[in-house]
Amino acid sequence: MKKYENFSEWFDEVLFNAEILDYRYPIKGFAVYKGWGWRIVRKIIQMLEERLEASGHNPMLFPVVIPEDSFAKEAEHIEGFRAEVFWITQAGSRKLARKMLLRPTSETAMYPLFSYWIRSHADLPLKVFQSVPVYRYETKATRPLLRMREFLWNEAHTAHKDWEDAERQVQEAVRIYREVFRRLGLGFLILKRPDFDKFAGAVYSLAFDAWNPDGRVNQIGTVHNLGENFAKAFDITYEDVDGSHKYVFQTCYGFGISRTLAALISQHGDDHGLVLPPEVAPVQVIVIPIPYKGVEEEVKKYSREVYERIKREGIRVQIDESEDQPGEKFYRWEMFGVPVRVEVGPKDLEERQVTLSERVNLKRSRVKVEEMIPAIRELFVKITNELAERSLKTMEEMIVNARSLEALKSVIKEKKIGRVNWCGRLECAEKIREESGGEIRGHRFDVDEPPEGPCIICKGEAKLIIYVAKAY
Amino acid sequence: MKKYENFSEWFDEVLFNAEILDYRYPIKGFAVYKGWGWRIVRKIIQMLEERLEASGHNPMLFPVVIPEDSFAKEAEHIEGFRAEVFWITQAGSRKLARKMLLRPTSETAMYPLFSYWIRSHADLPLKVFQSVPVYRYETKATRPLLRMREFLWNEAHTAHKDWEDAERQVQEAVRIYREVFRRLGLGFLILKRPDFDKFAGAVYSLAFDAWNPDGRVNQIGTVHNLGENFAKAFDITYEDVDGSHKYVFQTCYGFGISRTLAALISQHGDDHGLVLPPEVAPVQVIVIPIPYKGVEEEVKKYSREVYERIKREGIRVQIDESEDQPGEKFYRWEMFGVPVRVEVGPKDLEERQVTLSERVNLKRSRVKVEEMIPAIRELFVKITNELAERSLKTMEEMIVNARSLEALKSVIKEKKIGRVNWCGRLECAEKIREESGGEIRGHRFDVDEPPEGPCIICKGEAKLIIYVAKAY
Repeated sequence: MKKYENFSEWFDEVLFNAEILDYRYPIKGFAVYKGWGWRIVRKIIQMLEERLEASGHNPMLFPVVIPEDSFAKEAEHIEGFRAEVFWITQAGSRKLARKMLLRPTSETAMYPLFSYWIRSHADLPLKVFQSVPVYRYETKATRPLLRMREFLWNEAHTAHKDWEDAERQVQEAVRIYREVFRRLGLGFLILKRPDFDKFAGAVYSLAFDAWNPDGRVNQIGTVHNLGENFAKAFDITYEDVDGSHKYVFQTCYGFGISRTLAALISQHGDDHGLVLPPEVAPVQVIVIPIPYKGVEEEVKKYSREVYERIKREGIRVQIDESEDQPGEKFYRWEMFGVPVRVEVGPKDLEERQVTLSERVNLKRSRVKVEEMIPAIRELFVKITNELAERSLKTMEEMIVNARSLEALKSVIKEKKIGRVNWCGRLECAEKIREESGGEIRGHRFDVDEPPEGPCIICKGEAKLIIYVAKAY
Repeated sequence: MKKYENFSEWFDEVLFNAEILDYRYPIKGFAVYKGWGWRIVRKIIQMLEERLEASGHNPMLFPVVIPEDSFAKEAEHIEGFRAEVFWITQAGSRKLARKMLLRPTSETAMYPLFSYWIRSHADLPLKVFQSVPVYRYETKATRPLLRMREFLWNEAHTAHKDWEDAERQVQEAVRIYREVFRRLGLGFLILKRPDFDKFAGAVYSLAFDAWNPDGRVNQIGTVHNLGENFAKAFDITYEDVDGSHKYVFQTCYGFGISRTLAALISQHGDDHGLVLPPEVAPVQVIVIPIPYKGVEEEVKKYSREVYERIKREGIRVQIDESEDQPGEKFYRWEMFGVPVRVEVGPKDLEERQVTLSERVNLKRSRVKVEEMIPAIRELFVKITNELAERSLKTMEEMIVNARSLEALKSVIKEKKIGRVNWCGRLECAEKIREESGGEIRGHRFDVDEPPEGPCIICKGEAKLIIYVAKAY
């Protein structure tokens, strides 16, 4: 199982062996999240939702179905999504008079209600979110977690009194997403998408692109400033302090839960399987007794004591007391990516110590049992940081300056991300896309990067440094 | 707002005013769970899932869509559900070659995978669950939370080596559900449904019927022993220790999350609004400063101190520092059902005390601020017990023996639950249903109740005492 030799095969094997996802569901693009995968998903959702709620977002649940007439209200939006929605046309043996679609995203499910909820300036800002599956009829080849017809995300939708407050909200959204992705140790770029690639109905779109071992970037989050577009389509107005009626300004942002899970797996995993950050690991510590002839019972008893000590501290711990050989147990729990393994052998027993092994680098160390808890907690911090540093380093190595179209072609071919000067004109963008084999992902939003030379296509004055890569 | 005068109106008002559900979604039978409602839902889910996981159930997520051919495999099952499924027939502008339906329940989504997962006796028992919305095209009048076309539930599905182990599982399921419902203080009967009312595809069905102020019982949970029915339809077999291949025995059980929320509201609520058990209240304690002229600042400061003291303990607390009058604040937080109100006035300030008010009975008491935390914790226990006792008492008063069809008619008319002797024959059941206006809900599963007289219809020997009521 070689991650960098054949990413696709490696990824499928990890999903299957670590019980993340079963892709044998009998409908293309739909899959089953199994126990281990679903437990990680829940932790990711919890990390995100806590931060959203702490910043005043209200959790809700909207229906999965949207009536055709709501969906059709914003012209650009329907244009962007029409080709990929699933239609419900029948119930029982009855043909429905009014077709409904499965949400591909929930603007048109939520905004009719927003127009009831928002009356006055005192109702603003309104900030809501939901963590739900959404449905898109992908016609490109589907891929587990990365491109599915049913995928999980958290979508937040907000309404504001003016453009400035919406802009402030965009910043808040970026801050929250960045914090969660960083806590997960992910390497990513925050890019402003070019106009021709913005969300259908938005004024502009930002996106979080995570690196992937095969060079295809993985969009794990997006933040959109919607301006007044949807407010006008759905008639969402408020009475201002001076009695005048105004349209609200809106933002929405989506956190790709399935894709974040994909990024976690593919950025941190190795040839032994998953490597999980402690914060989202369903099991953070696995205790493995290593009995030797003559002291089986004593090792077992001591292992139990070690397990109980860890459990008492509220750490998610399991003990593997199965009949398998220690080697098989190591292999299994490495596959599941458990951050810390505690080995308990005869020598540990004798000296009232334990052996700690870090999944991220397979390093081992011994500590006295009395010092075990602080040592484990320290390891959690260390592992979290190490994952983040390692991932960032890989991404930095993956980003390569390309000063010509030829150079860019090689970069893309080598499964890397190209960094190029661009004049901002659509024709040159088209040419980049067609000839390089990569897509224009946009320029950095959080870092000011002035051009470092002329446009790689027309050689005219460059306006931006943009990132070009294949994408999922 | 009178709960017992016009339940239906009262219920709708509470849902709206306490921000539980917004029923103005533009598709019939679909609604939006708002912030307060969704937070309660999450707590209910958490209580249930913790217990399911502790007893070895694995959390998963299966797709919302089921292919027609999987759905059609078990004959009774499709017969039971065919009339009420939503069909997806189109994607983009394309007509789908193979229709898909929205899950009305997930047997036919899960069991094709079970046949991959189960190979040997070592794979058994298999126990999985998911908390998801399901979809049923109700043709009867829809009602918020009680009868919707999209509703939330948790469904667990298990596979076992033999009938005995499946029977043991039924007991475990009943135990878990009973425990959660009791913790929520709900009054309910555990009934074995008559054969003609069992789940489509089951050998037998048990159900939890909660009482409702309008006399219509509310089925909040069901437990089914499926025998080998689905195993044969989906070819789910295992290799036993002796090398022989056998069909598994299955059970499944559903915990109605939307309906449990409905039961919580309607059993515990009163003419002031919601009354929540502390365990599921999004806010457990509300601190309300009651400033008086001259000591405004001191009261505010002391209220802050009180708030911080409670918050430090991990209790879910808020402080209402809005400009509203104390009376308005009392009214608002009573509507939201917050279990404990902490009033902080000038007298409290002077004596370093606080006034505690219990939502359940509006009783008030004063304690020193140093004794406040244990007093609040004690109140939580007291409130939880009081809710349960009050609900049980109401249910007991609602159950009335009926020794004749005429008597039963009156019982149903008076919005109560009839308890009658029945011979077990279908004709007599039909007659009871047609003439009494109520439905036969079954006999008690957890309590042995020998008949107390002849069948109320044929006057022949009675086999069972059954419960008859209108139902949602």
